[in-house]
Amino acid sequence: MPTPQLSANRALVLHPGGTFTYSEREIPTIESDRDVLVRVVATGLCGSDIHYWQHGKLGRYEVTQPLVLGHESSGVIVATGSNVDRLKVNDRVALEPGISCNVCSYCRSGRYNLCTSMQFAATPPVNGTLCTYYRVPAQCCYKLPDTVSFRDGALVEPLSVAVHACRLGGDMQNRSVVVFGAGPVGLLCCAVAAAFGASTVVAVDVVEERLECARRYGATHTYRMQTAQAEGDGSNEAQIRALTGLHEGVDVVLDASGAEACLACGIGVLASGGTFVQVGLGKPTVAFPVGMVCDKEIAFKGSFRYGPGDYKLAIGLLSSGRVRVDGLVTHEFDFEKAEEAFKNVVARRGIKSVIYGPSIDSHMRIA
Amino acid sequence: MPTPQLSANRALVLHPGGTFTYSEREIPTIESDRDVLVRVVATGLCGSDIHYWQHGKLGRYEVTQPLVLGHESSGVIVATGSNVDRLKVNDRVALEPGISCNVCSYCRSGRYNLCTSMQFAATPPVNGTLCTYYRVPAQCCYKLPDTVSFRDGALVEPLSVAVHACRLGGDMQNRSVVVFGAGPVGLLCCAVAAAFGASTVVAVDVVEERLECARRYGATHTYRMQTAQAEGDGSNEAQIRALTGLHEGVDVVLDASGAEACLACGIGVLASGGTFVQVGLGKPTVAFPVGMVCDKEIAFKGSFRYGPGDYKLAIGLLSSGRVRVDGLVTHEFDFEKAEEAFKNVVARRGIKSVIYGPSIDSHMRIA
Amino acid sequence: MPTPQLSANRALVLHPGGTFTYSEREIPTIESDRDVLVRVVATGLCGSDIHYWQHGKLGRYEVTQPLVLGHESSGVIVATGSNVDRLKVNDRVALEPGISCNVCSYCRSGRYNLCTSMQFAATPPVNGTLCTYYRVPAQCCYKLPDTVSFRDGALVEPLSVAVHACRLGGDMQNRSVVVFGAGPVGLLCCAVAAAFGASTVVAVDVVEERLECARRYGATHTYRMQTAQAEGDGSNEAQIRALTGLHEGVDVVLDASGAEACLACGIGVLASGGTFVQVGLGKPTVAFPVGMVCDKEIAFKGSFRYGPGDYKLAIGLLSSGRVRVDGLVTHEFDFEKAEEAFKNVVARRGIKSVIYGPSIDSHMRIA
Amino acid sequence: MPTPQLSANRALVLHPGGTFTYSEREIPTIESDRDVLVRVVATGLCGSDIHYWQHGKLGRYEVTQPLVLGHESSGVIVATGSNVDRLKVNDRVALEPGISCNVCSYCRSGRYNLCTSMQFAATPPVNGTLCTYYRVPAQCCYKLPDTVSFRDGALVEPLSVAVHACRLGGDMQNRSVVVFGAGPVGLLCCAVAAAFGASTVVAVDVVEERLECARRYGATHTYRMQTAQAEGDGSNEAQIRALTGLHEGVDVVLDASGAEACLACGIGVLASGGTFVQVGLGKPTVAFPVGMVCDKEIAFKGSFRYGPGDYKLAIGLLSSGRVRVDGLVTHEFDFEKAEEAFKNVVARRGIKSVIYGPSIDSHMRIA
Repeated sequence: MPTPQLSANRALVLHPGGTFTYSEREIPTIESDRDVLVRVVATGLCGSDIHYWQHGKLGRYEVTQPLVLGHESSGVIVATGSNVDRLKVNDRVALEPGISCNVCSYCRSGRYNLCTSMQFAATPPVNGTLCTYYRVPAQCCYKLPDTVSFRDGALVEPLSVAVHACRLGGDMQNRSVVVFGAGPVGLLCCAVAAAFGASTVVAVDVVEERLECARRYGATHTYRMQTAQAEGDGSNEAQIRALTGLHEGVDVVLDASGAEACLACGIGVLASGGTFVQVGLGKPTVAFPVGMVCDKEIAFKGSFRYGPGDYKLAIGLLSSGRVRVDGLVTHEFDFEKAEEAFKNVVARRGIKSVIYGPSIDSHMRIA
Repeated sequence: MPTPQLSANRALVLHPGGTFTYSEREIPTIESDRDVLVRVVATGLCGSDIHYWQHGKLGRYEVTQPLVLGHESSGVIVATGSNVDRLKVNDRVALEPGISCNVCSYCRSGRYNLCTSMQFAATPPVNGTLCTYYRVPAQCCYKLPDTVSFRDGALVEPLSVAVHACRLGGDMQNRSVVVFGAGPVGLLCCAVAAAFGASTVVAVDVVEERLECARRYGATHTYRMQTAQAEGDGSNEAQIRALTGLHEGVDVVLDASGAEACLACGIGVLASGGTFVQVGLGKPTVAFPVGMVCDKEIAFKGSFRYGPGDYKLAIGLLSSGRVRVDGLVTHEFDFEKAEEAFKNVVARRGIKSVIYGPSIDSHMRIA
Repeated sequence: MPTPQLSANRALVLHPGGTFTYSEREIPTIESDRDVLVRVVATGLCGSDIHYWQHGKLGRYEVTQPLVLGHESSGVIVATGSNVDRLKVNDRVALEPGISCNVCSYCRSGRYNLCTSMQFAATPPVNGTLCTYYRVPAQCCYKLPDTVSFRDGALVEPLSVAVHACRLGGDMQNRSVVVFGAGPVGLLCCAVAAAFGASTVVAVDVVEERLECARRYGATHTYRMQTAQAEGDGSNEAQIRALTGLHEGVDVVLDASGAEACLACGIGVLASGGTFVQVGLGKPTVAFPVGMVCDKEIAFKGSFRYGPGDYKLAIGLLSSGRVRVDGLVTHEFDFEKAEEAFKNVVARRGIKSVIYGPSIDSHMRIA
Repeated sequence: MPTPQLSANRALVLHPGGTFTYSEREIPTIESDRDVLVRVVATGLCGSDIHYWQHGKLGRYEVTQPLVLGHESSGVIVATGSNVDRLKVNDRVALEPGISCNVCSYCRSGRYNLCTSMQFAATPPVNGTLCTYYRVPAQCCYKLPDTVSFRDGALVEPLSVAVHACRLGGDMQNRSVVVFGAGPVGLLCCAVAAAFGASTVVAVDVVEERLECARRYGATHTYRMQTAQAEGDGSNEAQIRALTGLHEGVDVVLDASGAEACLACGIGVLASGGTFVQVGLGKPTVAFPVGMVCDKEIAFKGSFRYGPGDYKLAIGLLSSGRVRVDGLVTHEFDFEKAEEAFKNVVARRGIKSVIYGPSIDSHMRIA
């Protein structure tokens, strides 16, 4: 198969100050014989993209020079290095957006998400995927099964976040799981927990319509958090226990909300010996019921991105139908209207907004 | 060997309101054929004993009726049930003070410290060991090696707390460990971490003389916490990193202080992927740098008492000399002067205060 | 609810030499306040029952006095001790047939299946469940959901064997599993592996009709073992690799056959880092490709009965419909025709044969 | 510091047929910016080196073209790539002789010893280290502490083999361990097991003088295997149980002998729930008491080379003095007399024979 003729490399560029421009950039070349070049087809927007746009920084990372955003992408291979044998031109792939050094002690010991030299797409100063062509090492590309469209392929990244968090939650077979937050990652956590065999999956949010949605993605119960009661009086927890009949508490909590009230409620609703996984982020410092964490010998785990096998398992879950993501992408935007996608997320409309790469026609999106 | 002639069962009784009296109680009888009766020889005082005396309650437990305190004890077997074959009269033993139900799902799955029906000595309304005779199931008695005195045998309980916490810390071979708090449990955590192969053990406290002591129990470095800097400016962490040369952070933190500033410093000084174990308790709710816990994918674990194998390993560590406790018992009291022991602990004198059972002569104490 | 009027306790008794008689035995009484008395409704026959009948011994256990066989049973509670609160008269239950001591180091550490004082039903000299009434501690009874009949409730025991084995196999999400032997336990291993998320489940047997059956219980592929090739020429392995497209080998092997040729084939077909679980037993000593076990750093694990949580998970799998056992019980026998059931198993007819307890009418069997 | 002037690259070359010659080869150049060039100082001989010399092949690997042997080496850095910051010229290092691909699923998930594209020194067709200069990626070099000589630095490789095997054995604190085979790897297994906290370490061999040696490297007991009894009558096991007083069996067996009789004895002497680690290799297929493996629910694990953290821990054990290797190198040879070293190993003289690189003077050897 002949190498495709490459068009120009068009990019959406965020400038310090928060303005977007479109510009044409050089097409990346295959540098290492293990690199591949991908034409980006679909890119989901993540909270961090929005944050860089609105605030110019996130944690210790700051937008001090023009930056291409986007890191939840699917695409098609357009060129491969000479030492790449697992992938070929025209393969449809999901992109893992972090390039680890592969040789530090974290990488060598199976925790590459903690790599001290990680180059992560759309984290300053590393450019992201909202462009025509993106180059990555072959190990960052995962073939999409025919049954998964490019559109849904852009969901493999947040699904991998959910997979990683659920794995940290430990064995879920026949266990009870509470998921706080019913945004994209929370919904995917519900779906993965169900696929991992959880017998009870409680979705908790403050927005009723998100909870309704959760029932389509694996939640067996939903609970609308009472914020007035969230000051630690325990009534939310009591209601979750009553709702599920789990009076000794639940086995696992996944917090995809980052809300302080959810952390307190989650620790409160856990049974002794339970596990709390913090997936989403809110305030950097929160009140923490450490006494209960000790009395119940709880393990509280931070979850950071995804690591070995998470992408592969995410795709396996999609491929086998054990996780279904139909309907999660609620809004789609042409590349030339990308800024509208950002505004749509800010307005909290729908669940997931996706931007298609330059010149991607509608036929290809759902191929 | 003839069953020893039993004397009266004298007990130190704490009354609601905080007064102590001595009283004579019935000698417990062997109820189950797996029970043993122990003459208590030495009992260490623990922070919880002091707390019940001073405040009349601890967490959800309250002194509403006369209560015998004490749960860190060694003694000698004076009677055994007919189905006890592992122990015999005159055996010298350390007592595990919690009687679990053995049949709930926690007990059955190897986490009996979380037993929902645990009967724990000196936790209202269960009486403790500050008396002449105490009855326990045989599995709660662990033979002391000849080289361990009754006095040091009373340290097996806090040593088991340290063993349990260190096990939760994960593999310590050639790892770096920071221990906050250089009281009895903190010092024992240092000693166990060293025995578990930690190459760096940093003891942190605000009292210089406790730190000097820590060097005798396994600490390779000591750091005097600057409380003025404890407001989260990170300078304590920076100094611990500089002191140890571990610029990427340490592998494990054991917090035996329960101080809020130590929690913040401990999370700050951990390397990515590190583990924090909360051993000691202070305020029930504290400020928690959850953002850092996520970014570094830290596991924060509550540690509750001790579970399967911890007592056995604690005794093994003493027996092999890999943990030495010489000098940890700094103050010893006759049973009739028990209240002085409580006052001594309140005054924070020395490290561990021990009360000997009624009519225990000085020869026996260090036998 | 009044305690049911108890009828006589009729038992099927195996005598040394291999003859069966029926006899009437005393009705067991509640001995401990945690005991329950169960009227046995349905009992599946297991290979070990057959073995005792035909050979008078199994391993180190020998039938030297009259013995009641049977240990795969469901039933209904007819009496409870005063300290039993989780169960009540008329509850429908599956019986866990092993009574562990609960206090040895295995029991205390969560491996009660290895209890050194285990009393296991139908293992000489402990009588089994082929009788009217059977007494067990409450923790050995697990409530059956309404959707599971007594007949299928008798399958909880072998299902727990499969659950235990699959757990030893490690994480199965999106992994490939080969199961050797498509008898009851092998079929249930297929079903559990599928429920645990295995993406590929290959059932291997020498009998074509068993393989057809396997497809109904989770197998994605079947392979008819070529016995002429089983001498280690590797062609069976090559064909399994070709069949599945897994050229680097499979992740997990579960051997429910006990056949020497299957062990060799299983080790050969495993990928590096894979796990082999030996569930079924054949010859006590077999040829073992230890060189390959080292080169591929394989973990080979013996699986013995079931332990903490296995029964509960087995029932959860049935209850949620994630494991279906419809059709596994192929032959049913009245208590008075029990010997025919034994003969039926020897003749290798069908999959699982069940004997109903005395005076159990047909309505109750499938209730 | 100026880059050292490089001399010629002299190599000891094994030819198909088993003859050695010396030849001068090109000095390797830094190819990747993460490579380093090492001047080899000391190289220990391993059983595999001897095997290639005597038999021309080992397993599936065959000497079909001239091959440089040797893979247990220490040396000094003489050049570094531009992207190497952890190492500099003149650093004294131990060499990890396997170069993994870093991107396959094994490498990514923390099991790089199973890398499907591993390039391992002295495994055909990859040349080994018996030469003047050897090039490796920086992550394969581990700095030696000042207290470890080059001579002992050559032992880091077999020590890492022992570390890897002991880690597979699981928690060894206060546990009992039996090590079969008291050659270099077996002795190092004894030493590591002791450093890992084993309370009982039994060395087993057929040669009395090796057993005497074992006592210097951590063995608490020694047992001379009775080969006449090795046919499975169980008397060796009975004697090991009697010798140690461990009548219920031992917790861990490490077999560094590869002898069939040791495997049978090891399985026999294990307690229920124990772990067997196969370190050394003998016959590719052996008799295996699979019935006992199931009844005792034993985990039998193949151990293959070493993986993440093993080299670092090995050096940590040396550095801290928790493992001492004084006296393990019993024979030392000049490069020009290398063949004598091979003959010395064949004659089974001493424990470990070391060959020094070309023109390495005696002062440097023990520096």
